[in-house]
Amino acid sequence: MATSEASVTRIMVAVNESTIKGYPHASISSKGAFEWTLQKIVMSNTSGFKLLFLHVQVPDEDGFDDMDSIYASPEDFKSLKSRDRARGLHLLEFFVTRCHEIGVACEAWIKKGDPKEVICHEVRRIQPDLLVLGSRGLGPFQRVFVGTVSEFCVKHAECPVVTIKRRSDETPQDPVDD
Amino acid sequence: MATSEASVTRIMVAVNESTIKGYPHASISSKGAFEWTLQKIVMSNTSGFKLLFLHVQVPDEDGFDDMDSIYASPEDFKSLKSRDRARGLHLLEFFVTRCHEIGVACEAWIKKGDPKEVICHEVRRIQPDLLVLGSRGLGPFQRVFVGTVSEFCVKHAECPVVTIKRRSDETPQDPVDD
Repeated sequence: MATSEASVTRIMVAVNESTIKGYPHASISSKGAFEWTLQKIVMSNTSGFKLLFLHVQVPDEDGFDDMDSIYASPEDFKSLKSRDRARGLHLLEFFVTRCHEIGVACEAWIKKGDPKEVICHEVRRIQPDLLVLGSRGLGPFQRVFVGTVSEFCVKHAECPVVTIKRRSDETPQDPVDD
Repeated sequence: MATSEASVTRIMVAVNESTIKGYPHASISSKGAFEWTLQKIVMSNTSGFKLLFLHVQVPDEDGFDDMDSIYASPEDFKSLKSRDRARGLHLLEFFVTRCHEIGVACEAWIKKGDPKEVICHEVRRIQPDLLVLGSRGLGPFQRVFVGTVSEFCVKHAECPVVTIKRRSDETPQDPVDD
């Protein structure tokens, strides 16, 4: 089979930042989902796939560092927004760089909002062939309190979805972290 | 990347017979899951994948045709069993033949029992890289009465799982049929 544009499989990978303090990079489960896609699906067929990286920023997820700041003027909010943007771009750069190194076509973009809602909305808009999500693989007790984006998307996203659980030997001290 | 045995991606595809009377073949959703795997994942990289076809036969799913028969001796049950076996082999032959035609390595086998339990058990035993399941894509109301194997396996199978919903234009008259 030829790998013309029409027969390229478009895989959306939803990626997020680590929540671990002092770890300003992709989350363990995002990286796991990405590496699984490359190693188990793409393999040597680099021209057969296009990866679409969606990073959803939660408006209030800036966390403790930013809560120490004082927002006293519209400029403060602007600088916050540009910091958000810089962090998001830094995150996406990791994935895009890796794709370029191995020669897989990709696109990447940032959206704001509730991750599960935004991911399902972007699936409707982009219509990928497959959505790959990393998951912390939490037990039922932990899930009740933090919810899981992957469970929602498996049910509601309008395309096939595969969830890649974080490897147990990569679980951080607090398993809700990632 | 080389496609040595170690880097071959092993995809388990659970397949079942159609429940539509007079339609002694693979179910619509099984065929959909299989074709999706070939067209979207395997593509031209036929040496990079091995497909593992698992067919689970439900002990009492023989249906109306067999209920008209009379079982009066141990031989009757033996002939029933061999008919089960013949139907299962016929089903698997469809998938194995297609794989041979396009040059994808495969294995196929039959197990008896509750499909969702057997599939999860076989995943633990075989440890595939991915489990692909067809699904009828039933609404919540229909699901309550028939249950769905895919929902159970997405939660409990110890490997990544992707569910391929039946295309809406392929839904038979009774959507619970397949």
